[in-house]
Amino acid sequence: MNVLNLNKLFNPESIAMIGASGSPGKWGFIIFLNILKGNYKGTLYPVNPRRESILGYPCYASVKDIPTPVDVAIITTPAESVPPLIDECGEKKIPYIIVITSDFSETGPEGERLEREIVSRARSYGMRIVGPNTMGIFSSEKNMHALMPPVMPLQGPVSMFSQSGNVGVQMLAWGIDEGVGFEKFVSSGNEGDLNCEDYLRYFSMDDATRVILAYIEGIDPGVDLLDAAREVSRKKPIIVYKGGRTDTGGKAAASHSGAMAGSSRIFSAAFRQAGMIEVTTGHELMDCAKALSIYPLPRGNRVGILTRGGGWGVMTADACEEYGLVIPPLPDKLIDKFDKLLPKYWSRGNPVDMVAVIDRDPYRECLDILANWDDVDSIIALGVGGRGELFRYSEEVKGTKELMEALAMSSQLIELRVKAQNETIKYIGELVKSSGKPIIAVSIGSNGTHRSNLSEYEVVSYPTPERAVRALKRMYEYSRFVNTSP
Amino acid sequence: MNVLNLNKLFNPESIAMIGASGSPGKWGFIIFLNILKGNYKGTLYPVNPRRESILGYPCYASVKDIPTPVDVAIITTPAESVPPLIDECGEKKIPYIIVITSDFSETGPEGERLEREIVSRARSYGMRIVGPNTMGIFSSEKNMHALMPPVMPLQGPVSMFSQSGNVGVQMLAWGIDEGVGFEKFVSSGNEGDLNCEDYLRYFSMDDATRVILAYIEGIDPGVDLLDAAREVSRKKPIIVYKGGRTDTGGKAAASHSGAMAGSSRIFSAAFRQAGMIEVTTGHELMDCAKALSIYPLPRGNRVGILTRGGGWGVMTADACEEYGLVIPPLPDKLIDKFDKLLPKYWSRGNPVDMVAVIDRDPYRECLDILANWDDVDSIIALGVGGRGELFRYSEEVKGTKELMEALAMSSQLIELRVKAQNETIKYIGELVKSSGKPIIAVSIGSNGTHRSNLSEYEVVSYPTPERAVRALKRMYEYSRFVNTSP
Repeated sequence: MNVLNLNKLFNPESIAMIGASGSPGKWGFIIFLNILKGNYKGTLYPVNPRRESILGYPCYASVKDIPTPVDVAIITTPAESVPPLIDECGEKKIPYIIVITSDFSETGPEGERLEREIVSRARSYGMRIVGPNTMGIFSSEKNMHALMPPVMPLQGPVSMFSQSGNVGVQMLAWGIDEGVGFEKFVSSGNEGDLNCEDYLRYFSMDDATRVILAYIEGIDPGVDLLDAAREVSRKKPIIVYKGGRTDTGGKAAASHSGAMAGSSRIFSAAFRQAGMIEVTTGHELMDCAKALSIYPLPRGNRVGILTRGGGWGVMTADACEEYGLVIPPLPDKLIDKFDKLLPKYWSRGNPVDMVAVIDRDPYRECLDILANWDDVDSIIALGVGGRGELFRYSEEVKGTKELMEALAMSSQLIELRVKAQNETIKYIGELVKSSGKPIIAVSIGSNGTHRSNLSEYEVVSYPTPERAVRALKRMYEYSRFVNTSP
Repeated sequence: MNVLNLNKLFNPESIAMIGASGSPGKWGFIIFLNILKGNYKGTLYPVNPRRESILGYPCYASVKDIPTPVDVAIITTPAESVPPLIDECGEKKIPYIIVITSDFSETGPEGERLEREIVSRARSYGMRIVGPNTMGIFSSEKNMHALMPPVMPLQGPVSMFSQSGNVGVQMLAWGIDEGVGFEKFVSSGNEGDLNCEDYLRYFSMDDATRVILAYIEGIDPGVDLLDAAREVSRKKPIIVYKGGRTDTGGKAAASHSGAMAGSSRIFSAAFRQAGMIEVTTGHELMDCAKALSIYPLPRGNRVGILTRGGGWGVMTADACEEYGLVIPPLPDKLIDKFDKLLPKYWSRGNPVDMVAVIDRDPYRECLDILANWDDVDSIIALGVGGRGELFRYSEEVKGTKELMEALAMSSQLIELRVKAQNETIKYIGELVKSSGKPIIAVSIGSNGTHRSNLSEYEVVSYPTPERAVRALKRMYEYSRFVNTSP
């Protein structure tokens, strides 16, 4: 197994920005600015023969003029200017070049020739290339935001490689809302040199990476991504989105990245055999990343459901059956326990419908009973952490002094409720650790209010039951792979 | 056809709140407060023999003491107190009673008996009952928020009846984030008297209602919901979520609302025959409500896709094929037109991948070409209205004066871009009207930033391609039903 150690690429002490520019309409300006904005913890050298300084940073006419060693060069200048720049980088002994520039193999035979040219020149100096036609790299250790869009992702244990720059950087942005933090990210571009297999193997041996995400459109002949995945997925979950899994999408992928169309079903089977977790939406990519980076795996597919409202329990049960998860019936012994906590007309079954009461909330006691029930491997806890929007006020209320006082009083009640919710969330985090079972919270808010509290206590939460069930299903599948593969 | 005119129930001039209370821990307080908070445009009379006044409103010992006629009485007092209160309401000639109180047929034979008792008493006075065990009613004409939770929905052309109070009121809350405005809502509760068919037929003849939503767990024998739906759905779309569509969910529904389990597949077929649009998630309910209340129906299933990033075009094409929508190839004549607008390495196919450029954005021209292309019936426009989160800044940037200036300059650029986006959104709204084709915007943000601008210009937008494709598919199915049913 040939694992490249890409530490210097992802954690460079110094970066040369070739094509750095002072004009806001140029990528050489935007990327330079993004690196600065991200508070990069190394030294950044702008390189531009036509400028003395850029944004107050002294500018170099060539990388060869830079007084210290350079770990990474980023190139944004037009395609035809790249080959001689590669030579300069080679003479400077820069080990990694990120070629942002497009107009290479993605545009036809002429671009292909130029791409082969820059790769072979780089190799002759022992240098490696990211791209060309890449949107760049993010890495959290050095706060390195060498990206075209000015996205500032959350930091966390998830690393991703993406054959679509746009999809990849949007996932970094989605992570901000979804509570998914990233360790490393690379837009692999045309993969003229370094390819998805190299990144996968490197993420596999990177201790800071707990979960690997992949957006893939095609795999070049000679790249053993699936072989590599088979080894890696025993250690770390790999969640994969295959763009172009249908004929129609495959045709679009062929024109986008040159990926071979028509092999979608083969891919799905191969992913499964390699223990990869295939998803079909961006949200699912986020959802699986979150659950698998925080929670223990469920030992089986049996689910206990706790709900404050019958309808949501019904919807969750429907989703469980549709995804092949099982809702075991409640044994009499547990029914007796719940009888002592709940109003007499509670559901007396699984889903446990607590039936809304206002004066008392035995949610934690109920959760505790479910988590300690031997017949379930995981819990879905509905109505935790997202009820804020139900309690919004109209701002134009007019009325008596007594009414205004009542409004203030009910505001206080809502604050108390939010506080109690936070206690519940904290309790869930502890219960996951003590029971060893994943307890997925569902906020039942359209966009997951109070999500931040949830991640603070390492509690996995989704805004809808379907997303919770789907993530749980993927966790269960991965658990089966890990426990049955030799 | 027996259509009840429920105008007085949904638009009452006066409401008697029986069981109004001054204690924040009682539903009689919370509902009273919600009605006041919503700025109800009628007269509200608290009724409570043990209080002189509540929140500054003079209190009546009985409805019979109220000096004016009363259109609606709301009851929150314990179940056993309800029958004599029904008599008082009957003597006062109040036409509608909303019985919030639970502990009726949902709890067993004793509750069933009591429910039959209150219904037969009400009927003897010619009164009709909503519930019992209902979470209440919302109606926009009178700002009537007679609901248990303090949700203040957006107002708009969508009306809903729900056999789960909790699911229903959450949809009102989701609408706030999703840009779906409601005209009328009723939690139908146990349907001891007024039932889902009555509400459906009433919404059908209600001019202010353009789209009807339904959450259903079961239909009592003798209630011809499907017959009614067959007539109504020719005039207005009915979007239905069936809770308990699987065996597991059906069992949960049986314990929740007493619905009969095991008939899920039959329901789906019957819904389809009746022209109802069946959905399986809450988001889909919202998404279809939005599209069908704003946009013209597509005449066929052929879709043109415009994207700024190849990967997102691929994902959208995959979703289209999976949902049975067709992506026709671009004719040479159109390729020539796009050639004049786009960089030479654009996709030259459908999806039209514009390939990101920073200095020029011919998005509107491209949309125009697609909308006027005879071979497509609808457009999906990716990357409109939601890129805000990509451009968030780290707030702890340190650096030179020049850097701070550059940051300020790039902030201005972002503002310009947002402004240009707004122009594009406005343009889409106009293009929908002039072309007669639905143009669905996809913001590609996890939670749909800038959604408000979109609704201002009557543009339908979703945060992900899959949600756009699924909504379009449902619109197409409904369009086929309307155009082929006799």
